[in-house]
Amino acid sequence: MYAITIREPGEPDVLEWTEQPDPEPGEGEVLLDVVASAVNRADLLQRRGLYPPPPGASEVPGLECSGTIAALGPGVTGWQVGDEVCALLAGGGYAERVTVPAGQLLPLPAEVDLITSAALPEVACTVWSNVVQTAGLTHGELFLVHGGGSGIGTHAIQVGKALGATVAVTAGSASRLELCGQLGADILINYREQDFVEELKQHTDGANVILDIMGASYLDKNISALATGGRLAIIGMQGGAKAELNIGKLLGKRASVSAAGLRGRPVDDKVRIVADVRERLWPMLDNGSVLPVVDQVVPAAEAAAAHRALEGGEIFGKVVLAVKS
Amino acid sequence: MYAITIREPGEPDVLEWTEQPDPEPGEGEVLLDVVASAVNRADLLQRRGLYPPPPGASEVPGLECSGTIAALGPGVTGWQVGDEVCALLAGGGYAERVTVPAGQLLPLPAEVDLITSAALPEVACTVWSNVVQTAGLTHGELFLVHGGGSGIGTHAIQVGKALGATVAVTAGSASRLELCGQLGADILINYREQDFVEELKQHTDGANVILDIMGASYLDKNISALATGGRLAIIGMQGGAKAELNIGKLLGKRASVSAAGLRGRPVDDKVRIVADVRERLWPMLDNGSVLPVVDQVVPAAEAAAAHRALEGGEIFGKVVLAVKS
Repeated sequence: MYAITIREPGEPDVLEWTEQPDPEPGEGEVLLDVVASAVNRADLLQRRGLYPPPPGASEVPGLECSGTIAALGPGVTGWQVGDEVCALLAGGGYAERVTVPAGQLLPLPAEVDLITSAALPEVACTVWSNVVQTAGLTHGELFLVHGGGSGIGTHAIQVGKALGATVAVTAGSASRLELCGQLGADILINYREQDFVEELKQHTDGANVILDIMGASYLDKNISALATGGRLAIIGMQGGAKAELNIGKLLGKRASVSAAGLRGRPVDDKVRIVADVRERLWPMLDNGSVLPVVDQVVPAAEAAAAHRALEGGEIFGKVVLAVKS
Repeated sequence: MYAITIREPGEPDVLEWTEQPDPEPGEGEVLLDVVASAVNRADLLQRRGLYPPPPGASEVPGLECSGTIAALGPGVTGWQVGDEVCALLAGGGYAERVTVPAGQLLPLPAEVDLITSAALPEVACTVWSNVVQTAGLTHGELFLVHGGGSGIGTHAIQVGKALGATVAVTAGSASRLELCGQLGADILINYREQDFVEELKQHTDGANVILDIMGASYLDKNISALATGGRLAIIGMQGGAKAELNIGKLLGKRASVSAAGLRGRPVDDKVRIVADVRERLWPMLDNGSVLPVVDQVVPAAEAAAAHRALEGGEIFGKVVLAVKS
């Protein structure tokens, strides 16, 4: 098969579409003929050598894909060869074939085509596990989403609205904020021109849940922006990894800070998350209250161009990599 | 009635047993004839002027008491004049009479006498809300309790064991650790001689839940001591309020930090906590798997001596203030 290899850590040009051995499905795994994958920010870090694959995972980038089941490994039940699926991967998605534990497969939502569905598993499982399972966002709460125009952000806005929350977003331009508003965001904050803590206080008593991708640079401001009992969920550290925590402020608000990635979780954890996503989030996709947001579809062999586009900061939603067209 | 007043912020001698007007029960409140109160670390801070009562609360110290119901305010059901109870208070416990919302009353557990029961409400509601409701400690987990010999610590050890957790404690002397062991603690760490992070790693993969009273000075070590998916619950800041948070370490462990006090919560919150304590913790007291730990009973008029004793660091468990003997 062909797959993307990272020739050496570096700029997008190190991504090469080369021939590689086919993977073989182990116990409880299926082999997929990949139709599409999608680009995540973690892939950019992996390409630079800053986010090595967890032990046992493929060296090929790609944390999600869609495709058809080509073969079942021993012990797999509930799926058949030929089924069209999308899948959460620990790696290996930028390829013609990939193996994945059967518990990390998801059926296609109604109305979502096979190529587009590749854009769903990673954002769906990341947002659901952090915002719903850990932070417990519920109806009537105020949900602040940083980076509202990102793949994660565009999905989180819609999930927040589907759960009955009021959604505030930050983004870096009026045009991106307008698109966030079209997805349902209620409070639009331009982080280049406005202080999100002040803006939020004009509208509300603070955020009940914040989904954060900045880490250190936003830590203190995020805690200032929380309402009493608020929960800050950190999933990225684009603004650094270490910052002063004002425990007194946290205690005064009876608030919490959690931080979690998805990729490093053991398979059992991922399977539990995928099962809950299938049971509770997939119906929101089936009825159209949550839709995939895809900015571009790029041939997988041109993954370098897709990475450049994402790094350029102009992508709204996801970039999909088409393996078969 | 007589009650303790704080003449001015300062050392224990500022506590004076003086005559004061009787409180009157409002809507949904009861008036208690106080039999005993108990000393909490927050009282020491209040005496120094560092922890003012929340708006509307009595200026008299005392966050818990026991006694008999002397009168019912309008709208109170489920309780009768003459009932023996203990109560979670926002203040006012160091007194002959106090008013309290009826939802903050608890019946006496079987086998616990009226005076001793004054030592229960604050530790019970603090440990239950932080360790069980927020951090979700469950059977089979490793629970690290800092300050195992304190009022909170002695209660938390027993609750942890009753829930089926393995309990590790830190304390500052061999004799205090031995007493913690008699309460059920499995792993005994002398923080003056041992590094709790290293000690814990010798026995376990880390703590699933940590109950912390130090705040800043322990923040980084606590996060180092957490297992994957661990939850750090901070309820005190004896080691300061601000410290560097390593978000990368938190994210790598998919861990969380929460911080909360009890006193500042609105009545509705306290009522919910008290109801859950009555339903799920009180049976553990009824069957003797959790017992109050009282070091000394001191006359309330000698509250200064009780404060000196707690500040001396030699108290194991709680100091009770007897109002009626």
